[in-house]
Amino acid sequence: MSLAAHAVDLTLPEVPPLAEEALAVRLQHLLDHKTKPLGALGRLESLALRIGRILGTEAPVLQQPQMLVCAADHGLAARGVSAFPSDVTWQMVENFLAGGAAVSVLARQHGLALTVADCGVARAMAPRDSAPGQPRLLSHTRVAAGTADASVGPAMTEAQCAQAIANGCEIVRGLPGNALLLGEMGIGNTSVASLLVSRLCGLPIGDCTGAGTGLDAEGVARKRAVLQQALAANAGATQPLEALAALGGLEVATMVGAVLQAASERRVIVVDGFITSAAVLVASRLAPAVLERCVFAHRSGERGHTLLLGELQAEPLVDLGLRLGEGSGAALAWPLLQSACAVLREMASFEQAGVSGKG
Amino acid sequence: MSLAAHAVDLTLPEVPPLAEEALAVRLQHLLDHKTKPLGALGRLESLALRIGRILGTEAPVLQQPQMLVCAADHGLAARGVSAFPSDVTWQMVENFLAGGAAVSVLARQHGLALTVADCGVARAMAPRDSAPGQPRLLSHTRVAAGTADASVGPAMTEAQCAQAIANGCEIVRGLPGNALLLGEMGIGNTSVASLLVSRLCGLPIGDCTGAGTGLDAEGVARKRAVLQQALAANAGATQPLEALAALGGLEVATMVGAVLQAASERRVIVVDGFITSAAVLVASRLAPAVLERCVFAHRSGERGHTLLLGELQAEPLVDLGLRLGEGSGAALAWPLLQSACAVLREMASFEQAGVSGKG
Repeated sequence: MSLAAHAVDLTLPEVPPLAEEALAVRLQHLLDHKTKPLGALGRLESLALRIGRILGTEAPVLQQPQMLVCAADHGLAARGVSAFPSDVTWQMVENFLAGGAAVSVLARQHGLALTVADCGVARAMAPRDSAPGQPRLLSHTRVAAGTADASVGPAMTEAQCAQAIANGCEIVRGLPGNALLLGEMGIGNTSVASLLVSRLCGLPIGDCTGAGTGLDAEGVARKRAVLQQALAANAGATQPLEALAALGGLEVATMVGAVLQAASERRVIVVDGFITSAAVLVASRLAPAVLERCVFAHRSGERGHTLLLGELQAEPLVDLGLRLGEGSGAALAWPLLQSACAVLREMASFEQAGVSGKG
Repeated sequence: MSLAAHAVDLTLPEVPPLAEEALAVRLQHLLDHKTKPLGALGRLESLALRIGRILGTEAPVLQQPQMLVCAADHGLAARGVSAFPSDVTWQMVENFLAGGAAVSVLARQHGLALTVADCGVARAMAPRDSAPGQPRLLSHTRVAAGTADASVGPAMTEAQCAQAIANGCEIVRGLPGNALLLGEMGIGNTSVASLLVSRLCGLPIGDCTGAGTGLDAEGVARKRAVLQQALAANAGATQPLEALAALGGLEVATMVGAVLQAASERRVIVVDGFITSAAVLVASRLAPAVLERCVFAHRSGERGHTLLLGELQAEPLVDLGLRLGEGSGAALAWPLLQSACAVLREMASFEQAGVSGKG
């Protein structure tokens, strides 16, 4: 375990806009001439177009998809912002690795390689070897034993935040494949997402705050009050990186790095729910073109997520009332991305199939 | 090819209500104790409960899923109710078999065995052998060379309709597995679905009629006028089987039989879009408990579908603006059913995983 004690020299990956207009025209032409009425595959077609543009090809193949779950603890959790105790963070990491969590089950179903990164879980976990094809735990990415309590001051130092971002970049550089699915675990991290959305989008914290893992109405009211304190205690942190450090989330900061790196490598980024989307929000403020590389998997039942999706002009693929995180929604939506690619690659055109056009 | 020239003795399969209340309680208990906040997997949980009840087990496994695509032509098509000519029906059947259609691609992706039934395609197609694992064509299910023009009288005779229903039962009896995905092909068959929904649900035909494969506003107006004529020409056909025969669809009637048979065998029935749902509507009027065995895959972009889903109190899994039919939406949603089963079978409980409960 290495705790970052000094400032890191953070150079963010460059994410230029996709300049693929000619390819986009060719992709649309291909889709329009497949054996189906024009546009009849609905949003699967725009998904195919998006993936084709990201991967720079008319015949996209998603290869070696990687599910990266970033885990950390939060000082705010001591203020009672979650229905579950902080110990659940490490316990769930163990569950991810043992194969019994939702994301474990769904990653196995879809052949997604599962990497869990300890970005700052309070209880140190033993490093362990894992057999090929089994979930693995990264421990060298643990920046601290959780964040400080953001309701009284910054959750992270700038150096910690920079280290976590750098770790996210480095993790992705070490992963194979051309698609990254992102998930997270951290008791208290819907609070972090609410704080970041409120601060960076200028929305009232009350509108951004929900029940998380299952607070009752009284609990939600308490959570709102604590989050209001956190915003006040970090009033000066208005820029993206400042806000990220102050309002916290070592797993969120690690995901910010992962998103930037994946975007710079033109991987397809599959965004899970509220917390993952908050990481994308921060990343998009640093490099707006990351959004072109993102596929938003689902609309969370957490109320701030709909507001955030609106800010990002993102329309998620499914809406199943999920509010679990872990990457579970990203994994559930994954086959739709594969379908979109298969349609592009394998469907016949009217001409190829000898099917008559519109009368 | 055998055309039914005489009345068939139609005995509909019995579909008793699922009497699995104790199992439902056990399933809900299992779901509630999985390592996730209560209800956090949203509608995946109600899907798991439904499949568990249908298959009568706490550890459901979907086996040898069968995609059955029923194809037929429609006399109404000569009245200009579709943007495409009737020849597209047989051409698309050839495309299904050759592997180039959307449903071919998606069935291949998900390992769904694809059976295409010629229920009444205008142009007779050569029977052919197919290699194991390849799409196959059933021709003995062809009742007629399409239906008569419903705008001037009944689309089918009662004998034809009964034969098609019997064929649907027989097809399903011959299919292995415990899950049936249903799709269809037939130029003009959104008109049939609109007519059946209007007649059986008592809704204005204008509200039930959409652009189908891509009519312009003028085309939709013409379609509405033709459908109004069809309702008038068959004003006496108010009971489910009468309405089905009069308003037509040999592929719809075959699907009605398939739904009844699959429901009686307690298979999981995955319903595609507007036309397939219209077949389920008819089947549910004959045996209401079929609805307990159905999973509605998606909300079609065709306007009548939302009305029909409301009538059936059905909430589909995805809403991607699809309006293709063929079973494409059922195939796209299929992995969600597998995920629901995997969650039930493979997710750990709090106790098993040693995860703390709510604080």
